[in-house]
Amino acid sequence: MSGATAKKRAVSSIPEERKSNTTRTRSWQPYIDAALGFRNHWYPVFFGSELKEGDISPGLGEGAVTEIKTLEILGERILFRRVNGKVCAIEDQCLHKGSPFSVKPECFTKETITCWYHGFTYDLRDGRLKTILTDPKSPLIGKVAIKSYPVEERQGVVFVFVGDLDPPPPLEDDVQPGFLDDSLAVFPEGRTVVAKGNWRMAAENGFDPAHTYIHRNSPLVRAFRLPTVFGDTGLSDSRGMKVIDGPGPKGVVLIRGVGNPVWEAEIDGVKLKARFMPGDEGVNNEMVPEVSIWMPGGLKVDPFPAPGILMFEWYVPVDEDHYRYIMTWGRKASSAEEKDRFFDECTTLWKPLVPTTFTNEDEQAREAIHEFYASKGGWYKERLFGPDVVITRWRELASRVNRGIQQRG
Amino acid sequence: MSGATAKKRAVSSIPEERKSNTTRTRSWQPYIDAALGFRNHWYPVFFGSELKEGDISPGLGEGAVTEIKTLEILGERILFRRVNGKVCAIEDQCLHKGSPFSVKPECFTKETITCWYHGFTYDLRDGRLKTILTDPKSPLIGKVAIKSYPVEERQGVVFVFVGDLDPPPPLEDDVQPGFLDDSLAVFPEGRTVVAKGNWRMAAENGFDPAHTYIHRNSPLVRAFRLPTVFGDTGLSDSRGMKVIDGPGPKGVVLIRGVGNPVWEAEIDGVKLKARFMPGDEGVNNEMVPEVSIWMPGGLKVDPFPAPGILMFEWYVPVDEDHYRYIMTWGRKASSAEEKDRFFDECTTLWKPLVPTTFTNEDEQAREAIHEFYASKGGWYKERLFGPDVVITRWRELASRVNRGIQQRG
Amino acid sequence: MSGATAKKRAVSSIPEERKSNTTRTRSWQPYIDAALGFRNHWYPVFFGSELKEGDISPGLGEGAVTEIKTLEILGERILFRRVNGKVCAIEDQCLHKGSPFSVKPECFTKETITCWYHGFTYDLRDGRLKTILTDPKSPLIGKVAIKSYPVEERQGVVFVFVGDLDPPPPLEDDVQPGFLDDSLAVFPEGRTVVAKGNWRMAAENGFDPAHTYIHRNSPLVRAFRLPTVFGDTGLSDSRGMKVIDGPGPKGVVLIRGVGNPVWEAEIDGVKLKARFMPGDEGVNNEMVPEVSIWMPGGLKVDPFPAPGILMFEWYVPVDEDHYRYIMTWGRKASSAEEKDRFFDECTTLWKPLVPTTFTNEDEQAREAIHEFYASKGGWYKERLFGPDVVITRWRELASRVNRGIQQRG
Repeated sequence: MSGATAKKRAVSSIPEERKSNTTRTRSWQPYIDAALGFRNHWYPVFFGSELKEGDISPGLGEGAVTEIKTLEILGERILFRRVNGKVCAIEDQCLHKGSPFSVKPECFTKETITCWYHGFTYDLRDGRLKTILTDPKSPLIGKVAIKSYPVEERQGVVFVFVGDLDPPPPLEDDVQPGFLDDSLAVFPEGRTVVAKGNWRMAAENGFDPAHTYIHRNSPLVRAFRLPTVFGDTGLSDSRGMKVIDGPGPKGVVLIRGVGNPVWEAEIDGVKLKARFMPGDEGVNNEMVPEVSIWMPGGLKVDPFPAPGILMFEWYVPVDEDHYRYIMTWGRKASSAEEKDRFFDECTTLWKPLVPTTFTNEDEQAREAIHEFYASKGGWYKERLFGPDVVITRWRELASRVNRGIQQRG
Repeated sequence: MSGATAKKRAVSSIPEERKSNTTRTRSWQPYIDAALGFRNHWYPVFFGSELKEGDISPGLGEGAVTEIKTLEILGERILFRRVNGKVCAIEDQCLHKGSPFSVKPECFTKETITCWYHGFTYDLRDGRLKTILTDPKSPLIGKVAIKSYPVEERQGVVFVFVGDLDPPPPLEDDVQPGFLDDSLAVFPEGRTVVAKGNWRMAAENGFDPAHTYIHRNSPLVRAFRLPTVFGDTGLSDSRGMKVIDGPGPKGVVLIRGVGNPVWEAEIDGVKLKARFMPGDEGVNNEMVPEVSIWMPGGLKVDPFPAPGILMFEWYVPVDEDHYRYIMTWGRKASSAEEKDRFFDECTTLWKPLVPTTFTNEDEQAREAIHEFYASKGGWYKERLFGPDVVITRWRELASRVNRGIQQRG
Repeated sequence: MSGATAKKRAVSSIPEERKSNTTRTRSWQPYIDAALGFRNHWYPVFFGSELKEGDISPGLGEGAVTEIKTLEILGERILFRRVNGKVCAIEDQCLHKGSPFSVKPECFTKETITCWYHGFTYDLRDGRLKTILTDPKSPLIGKVAIKSYPVEERQGVVFVFVGDLDPPPPLEDDVQPGFLDDSLAVFPEGRTVVAKGNWRMAAENGFDPAHTYIHRNSPLVRAFRLPTVFGDTGLSDSRGMKVIDGPGPKGVVLIRGVGNPVWEAEIDGVKLKARFMPGDEGVNNEMVPEVSIWMPGGLKVDPFPAPGILMFEWYVPVDEDHYRYIMTWGRKASSAEEKDRFFDECTTLWKPLVPTTFTNEDEQAREAIHEFYASKGGWYKERLFGPDVVITRWRELASRVNRGIQQRG
């Protein structure tokens, strides 16, 4: 640990409640500035199964092709197309007059996309201008290129690198540990949705040890009798949490079962108890998960929602007010049959149930506090409490290890 | 009258038409700045009958409570709940991460509200943090508080004090004279609506002696044959109007029947006449009302819409572009039966008819000029005429006697 | 040609592809600044047939009149009314408190309009305040006026002059040559629509020699077998184009059939050909049009969509993000019967077909690039190519000969 880091830790050892907001925010200013996310990282964008191999325009030029995907992340609009099996990604904006290809995508060959307005034709693989149909002798041809993005498709998930580093750092450094393991069967048809709120609110909600309070009556919790604590207290740098600074993935881990779980509380003599406590009849005692958050915004919950299953979530910045919320599940599978059975389970149980009976409450929570942070000075007005120590560690880590802050324009 | 005020009056005695806009606006700059209203005043917000006694969450924590009211005034979001008969008002924003309680209000005891996100639990009566369900030993407990607002419920109307003065000045100084009189029976189920436009446009419209022009064909006017003048002219500081500087309520009164009523006009020989003039057959001669406007934005019309009835209106700032438009009626009632009959009359006649056949035209007028004042420099470009002298006195009064200008954030 | 202009031309003779954006934009900065259009020009607004003679309010004051037209151009809201056959135009905003007359237009005499709020009554012909119904003795009467606009109705089209020059320059200088010719029969019921996008994107699209690429499969092209080239190349100051600097109308003309038409292109060996080429069976060889653009934003296509027919289009700035898109057709007609037949043809064929099967593609294209220019720095990031030389000449011309740049407020 460097001296600078040690100094930061020293400051951080003051309990969260005692620190002035000025002291506190100074150590995570880059994070506060990252409304659009961190640049030069890999981000998952969709599941490979959502993008079929690209066909060419029928009859060469009549009608647009449909096998494309366009989406915005970190404020950049990106067009994806699968060419000879490999997903290609380019900026969705013609060099000439900025028209988005996606308004009417035309592909006359497998490897190219043509701007429907003036026929500027680009190689999907590297963004180079290959020809201009309305001026085939233009000196621009071969000289200029639109931005193309590195893409990797792993475990059924398409990842794109948003930034300028060339070559990009290894994908392995930007995903949750274990996710890429060959022995892990990852459900290749998870869920992707664009939700309202900033990505940081989503990331912080995901591994907040006190946010389980919102889930105490969730239908999923009730159906599967999951022991759901109000919150975990007593966490500190030396107890119950671990900051992983790399090499490899960087994140914060809440160590399973080390904090002090709060199972009941009272208000003026009125007692409130968690619905299911370990030891209660029928309650699934194994289901105390280990939760961790990883740069640039991936969550891992082990296990959830059932023993042996890992849940992965990602909170990918779309713009300042929306995030791409991606989730899937994985488990060790020692045979093809076991894997198939697991995928069936995901299809019939977890994909429909988790969003509608559990994480919908998280989405609501993230959206509810968005305005406070986005336009009411929340970063400087928030009043953190004990369990938030893990969130401040995440903010500090992200501020320290990010590869750049994404800016508009 | 102080010397400074005397000087202002001297400036004001130049007829409105002759003054440059610069001279004019200088004397009411604070009013121009008060797009969000004046701070440190009492404002009516709703009728007490609209908020029942608060119940606690059924089954302690399953489902949200419904007996709350949340609304925005002067740009502040306030949550109201009735505790042991008394209406309590707190900021609708948790200290921790700014989440609004109203997203999913949870009340596990009569006197508290719990933030649905992390269980921060506040006393509704003073805003103090009583406990945190996810961290019951937090040192924050008992030490911090959210903002709570003084509330008074009088004549069936709930008033809230928005500001910092502690104790607040008496409510009596901020309501129309007579409204609080014990002998006045006030209809406790008046009308509340959020309308488009700034509160100042609404206040000025309400007692503008020339705005009656828009009502000359109102269905209500026709049904009850109310003598409705085009406008009143000849008003000046020494004739037909009175500025009341306090002590007690502060306002501007248009004295009944002193101005020169305009009953007809002509354009190129084409004559236009008011529909109903005093003396015409069937016209209700008693119905020449005395109109007055009071800080921080309450109107009194005596009588309206029928002899013996007082109409009260309030234009409460919501944000820069909306106002809360509240209206009700009062009359002297010497017996319980008389009072009941009057309330029945309000229920069946005035509450449904006044908004739909008369004040709807005022709402339209206020909205129509909103853009001019809000974004086209109207305060500096307006071209006032004679009858507007009463409006300029109101602006000057408001600029002089307000207790502060509300600011964003 | 003046020395300064000659110098500009010299700079311009560097091929478009070679110039830095800085060099390029310097010569058309006024055009870049003209998001709201150019001031002190005549603009068409609607067809005379759309505005009937104005009636007066029924029963003098009950109900609003309907024979008015209100629209926004160059960011100004203008009210039109036909008085004794002649179209009058005034600012749609009362002097007093800025209320738009059009909220509830009241006209008690043929020549006046009365503000519905306080009865301010103006002469429609010159904007003078004639009386105030609520204060008929006001000293303001006769002294002040709202803005009135010069109007001319020619060839069935109503033109309005937006600016301050008094008298305005002749209308003839601001319309496409030939349009006003007595011998030209102009269809008096053309099409008017407000479309999304800035007027400059629309103007540039209209005569862009490479934009025909988007029309290669248009239903109209297919139905009438119009030879539609991918684009025209080889244009330069000395070849295929002509900048007309006045006197009279000022514009840029693409000379018919001088450039090098591109009828085919290829991508990696895949050949693409225009659908209809001159000489192909059934293809209408006469239909190679001459296209020209004229200040302040009018297009002329000769012929289109059939031999002998001229098409006229106008792109009138509404605000920064919308333009009024007006089109009609004209032809030489030597008899009343010929003219009638032509108007029938326009009614049954061109008015319904051209917008839905051809120019709808232009509207889409203009809208598609709007964001790039409006908020993503497009003027400085665009990458022009050879055929854009005619667009840069238009930008330079407009920057040189405009009579002023319209500003907000």
